[in-house]
Amino acid sequence: MSTIAGVLGGLGPEATVDFLAKLVAGTDAERDQDHIRLLIDHNPTVPNRHDAIAGRDASVAPQLVDMATGLERSGADFLVMVCNTAHAFAEDIRAAVSVPFISIVDVTVEAVAAAGHRQVGVMAAEGCLEAGLYQKALEAAGCEAVLWSDEELQTFMALVYRIKAGERDDDISSGIARLATSLVFSGAEALIAGCTEIPLVLAPDSAPVPLYSSTDLLVQRTIDIAKGTP
Amino acid sequence: MSTIAGVLGGLGPEATVDFLAKLVAGTDAERDQDHIRLLIDHNPTVPNRHDAIAGRDASVAPQLVDMATGLERSGADFLVMVCNTAHAFAEDIRAAVSVPFISIVDVTVEAVAAAGHRQVGVMAAEGCLEAGLYQKALEAAGCEAVLWSDEELQTFMALVYRIKAGERDDDISSGIARLATSLVFSGAEALIAGCTEIPLVLAPDSAPVPLYSSTDLLVQRTIDIAKGTP
Repeated sequence: MSTIAGVLGGLGPEATVDFLAKLVAGTDAERDQDHIRLLIDHNPTVPNRHDAIAGRDASVAPQLVDMATGLERSGADFLVMVCNTAHAFAEDIRAAVSVPFISIVDVTVEAVAAAGHRQVGVMAAEGCLEAGLYQKALEAAGCEAVLWSDEELQTFMALVYRIKAGERDDDISSGIARLATSLVFSGAEALIAGCTEIPLVLAPDSAPVPLYSSTDLLVQRTIDIAKGTP
Repeated sequence: MSTIAGVLGGLGPEATVDFLAKLVAGTDAERDQDHIRLLIDHNPTVPNRHDAIAGRDASVAPQLVDMATGLERSGADFLVMVCNTAHAFAEDIRAAVSVPFISIVDVTVEAVAAAGHRQVGVMAAEGCLEAGLYQKALEAAGCEAVLWSDEELQTFMALVYRIKAGERDDDISSGIARLATSLVFSGAEALIAGCTEIPLVLAPDSAPVPLYSSTDLLVQRTIDIAKGTP
């Protein structure tokens, strides 16, 4: 009896490649059969989440719910979604399925709080911040969110869209690193990479304080649940 | 209306990561929504295919058929499978679904024959060769398969299992390169990397004759079909 993970992916596509690569590399396995089974709906066609959250476009809850219910019907025992911003629709997903939906935001904040950090810098995209996903989860965990200025957030968004377009120019990683440092200057003792595009350009050890990758933490939780690790 | 690709994957896991990474990188896209949707059943729990083909273990057709019919039910418009050896069960899959199943073997041999090669070295695993997948397809295309000795095949299999175990020692890629060269000495004017583990350790330009990666060719065909490219 193995546990099958259902993955809402493709949001964006490279972030899902990163998730799957880290999951396969991070699984303790000597042969194919030691690895875990995943059902992945890699669906980049879901419309822009930031526009949906800001009310500039229709909600993407219907698309995400379709993906989630499809994965459940196909046999997924639990669900994860490789995109922080789309978690603005997590409650729509939870209401539509009967299997557990594991939140990347909850998993990440849990790790940060367990490490004893209190002032936590949140590197996240427009829709994720607008929906207050990390702010609320951090507050519930007794932590305080350290955030970018509006101008810095716009700089971040421009970089994220360039990453999504496949650009990997040096100024992208240096720009993200500068935005990380800015949160440290504002008092952050730890940083959350709360956008799955960040690890595509920023190495974990390139921040001046501990950097918690939401991708890495979701990978580990997915492996643990699928393998039945307590 | 987009066309959804169904992917039988996880055989092995890293080969599927490689396939997905190349597919995402190879898609002409400026934003998430320009990418194609995939439904992936990443199922490394399918038992050893070589043992099944050799009759040392039960057929894995039931598992592959379950994956294929599940992907079709979930909305896949066509199917691909990221594993050459498992194509020994291609007819079982075709008989069970009503959507097209695109063979990695056919796609690869088509490219090799179109390039005018006649003596073609086949780098493939035990079960794939035992089932004669490439030998038959090459013969039908008017080509001749150049094959390893039994001893070389055993050397290859030992390397494949080490790749699947996550090993990346230098002697693995040099060993695979030596096995490639051996086929050239036996008269091959072109080589087929007919095992999806090969590109994980062997660069396309490391062979002394044109090397056709079955992974790369299946990636391109998947993109073309999904994008409706003629």
